[in-house]
Amino acid sequence: MPDWLITGCSELLTLRGAVPRRGRTLGELGIIRDGALLVRDDRIVAVGRRRRIERLPEARRASKLDLGGRVALPGFVDSHTHLVFPASRVDEYEQRVSGKTYAQIARAGGGIRATVNAVRRALPKTLSERASTHLREFAAHGTTTIEAKSGYGLDWTSELKILCALQQLNQDQPLDIVETFLGAHIVPPEYRGRPDRFVELLVRGWIPAVATAGLAEFCDVFCDPGAFTVPQARRILKAGRACGLMPRIHAEQFRRTGAAQLAIEVEAASADHLEKVNGSDIRALALSNVTCTLLPGCSFHLGSPHYAPARELIDCGAIVALATDFNPGTSPTVSMPMILSLACAQMRMTPAEAIAAATINPAYSLRQHGRVGSLEAGKYADLAAFDVTDYREIPYYFGVNLCSLTMKRGLIVHSEKP
Amino acid sequence: MPDWLITGCSELLTLRGAVPRRGRTLGELGIIRDGALLVRDDRIVAVGRRRRIERLPEARRASKLDLGGRVALPGFVDSHTHLVFPASRVDEYEQRVSGKTYAQIARAGGGIRATVNAVRRALPKTLSERASTHLREFAAHGTTTIEAKSGYGLDWTSELKILCALQQLNQDQPLDIVETFLGAHIVPPEYRGRPDRFVELLVRGWIPAVATAGLAEFCDVFCDPGAFTVPQARRILKAGRACGLMPRIHAEQFRRTGAAQLAIEVEAASADHLEKVNGSDIRALALSNVTCTLLPGCSFHLGSPHYAPARELIDCGAIVALATDFNPGTSPTVSMPMILSLACAQMRMTPAEAIAAATINPAYSLRQHGRVGSLEAGKYADLAAFDVTDYREIPYYFGVNLCSLTMKRGLIVHSEKP
Repeated sequence: MPDWLITGCSELLTLRGAVPRRGRTLGELGIIRDGALLVRDDRIVAVGRRRRIERLPEARRASKLDLGGRVALPGFVDSHTHLVFPASRVDEYEQRVSGKTYAQIARAGGGIRATVNAVRRALPKTLSERASTHLREFAAHGTTTIEAKSGYGLDWTSELKILCALQQLNQDQPLDIVETFLGAHIVPPEYRGRPDRFVELLVRGWIPAVATAGLAEFCDVFCDPGAFTVPQARRILKAGRACGLMPRIHAEQFRRTGAAQLAIEVEAASADHLEKVNGSDIRALALSNVTCTLLPGCSFHLGSPHYAPARELIDCGAIVALATDFNPGTSPTVSMPMILSLACAQMRMTPAEAIAAATINPAYSLRQHGRVGSLEAGKYADLAAFDVTDYREIPYYFGVNLCSLTMKRGLIVHSEKP
Repeated sequence: MPDWLITGCSELLTLRGAVPRRGRTLGELGIIRDGALLVRDDRIVAVGRRRRIERLPEARRASKLDLGGRVALPGFVDSHTHLVFPASRVDEYEQRVSGKTYAQIARAGGGIRATVNAVRRALPKTLSERASTHLREFAAHGTTTIEAKSGYGLDWTSELKILCALQQLNQDQPLDIVETFLGAHIVPPEYRGRPDRFVELLVRGWIPAVATAGLAEFCDVFCDPGAFTVPQARRILKAGRACGLMPRIHAEQFRRTGAAQLAIEVEAASADHLEKVNGSDIRALALSNVTCTLLPGCSFHLGSPHYAPARELIDCGAIVALATDFNPGTSPTVSMPMILSLACAQMRMTPAEAIAAATINPAYSLRQHGRVGSLEAGKYADLAAFDVTDYREIPYYFGVNLCSLTMKRGLIVHSEKP
């Protein structure tokens, strides 16, 4: 792997020193004009103004990469995806457009259950190949680290099929994948009417097995009237934590259940969705270390005017992250730039807030902030360059992909013709 | 130019016979599975099932183009854009996100006026080069015919600068550009407080001059409290029609003014925006031949939950088209696929309705339906192929560009690596 001297950044967004702390969400972007980076192997060696970096002795030997006046920033960290599934659910999409609700479709056997059936039937190879294609698309939109959940198997064999596919993908392709066990996505058909029996199985069987086998770092629950209750979620997340799996939680998406408060109680790394939080939830989250991971792609794709209250969360001092929630039912997009456009236009986040919420903050929620999420010496050389001269144009030009180069650990994983 | 035998279309959306007529909006998509096209020079010679087309004598000599199972459809016709401007207005974007309204920004000298000032200062070469870059981006998203308006000059020299740039671009690059004179965009600073004097100038001076010089096919007015009144718009559009320029109108965007009824009265080719129409407007439009051109990118980018009532218009039988309204203030997107996603998720148009509204219907509104907008023998070989196997996935996968090939008049103008 060549060492790199990267120059030609009209704006280099470093996000240095921006690790989220309680009560102070979004650091400055640490913008360096005419910035440069020196990369050795997979790491950043130096970051600063071009004149200084170019004079470093190592700079002479490095391969030159001129970004031609583009804007460069840390590769996006997408901290909530359901990466592994075998097919789109475009039939449901047309049904929803024609007036059916997500809940109606789910009750008729569609929704998550439709994908569970498809995953159970799918060959591991099919799942891996499709996920692999999607990972290349993520990279093409500037993402370099991605969280991925199980939860479309819901029997042991099929959950393993997903988790093992993710482990293999983590080895075989360049992006970093952080794995989350979401055995508690919905109650599987085999346990219909007996959810507590399924929770028992999770708590005593699957969760310890996943942890022992080292197949995940996080444990997640979908806490919703159609999925699991707060008491069930509490048992599951505590069982996870006891085995070393940190909690994440799908909270307050379609109905307020109290899941946000549970996230605080169990010291979850992240509470995700939060469309239905109320004022006291917001204040409590702002006083916690729980990252509030907002997923505006869902509201958009479901045609709902209800977005999570990003403005209130930020203004109260909560740690806010943004993610795609890539999945075939409610958010089939791989594009973090699209999520930034939604965050700014629909949730009134500033472009600067949105960029911090797509880089260092989700890195923190995945406990990867020591390695990724900002451009600082010692961290991975994970970088995305955009074909704009002002970083605010990344969300501004909506619905298009202006990412012209993506580097992951010093490797160019996506490059547009100049 | 080679002749082409195009095969490998899992779905070929022909939109044959789908010319809009009053009271019957959206034809079937005329889908041919495993379809094929035969192209000679710039025209389609034959369309049908692969087996039949392959057997035609001309097919043997033609160059083979296998789309590998992708979905192919007529190139998009984008019937409302403000293509020529020198710079983004990303400062205003940040201000709006931070709480200022579009009207407040306009009153402070931003908005359209900011772009007018920039256009007046810009060199023709700068304007052309930027528009040319944007045209390549339009082509990369599947658009093959584009309407473009003047209206950012607002003095004679600067309006001419835009119209001449468009004429030159129409010669120098492959997409078809249809020109609209929008001298009546806003009242220029020189005529502040004397709008009727400016209308007089338009009616007696600029409009006849544009028509005589053959610099536009359509005449447009922005009818809005911040721009022109209905009586002023009537004078302008009638003057245009008297010179052979067909009327189009920016109607009912921010406030209901009666502009939709005026569109019917003057037999406008298109009434655009329509966010604020009422029930009687909808019924009247549905009984007219006026195409209702909806621009959901504006509502999206302005963060407004108010979209035009597409469902009601279609259900009443109106002719509905979709366009990007590409412009730096309210809709900086070149992506018709993004507009389709907005149409389906936010306005409840079905994917089939959205595709007809992006091809044959806008072709009709531009009076180009004899040449473009459907894939039929005798029409231009204007085609876009998407990397999906079901056409409904084009709007479904939102915020990404799945257009893998664009052909304009038999020429490949965009091609992704396979």
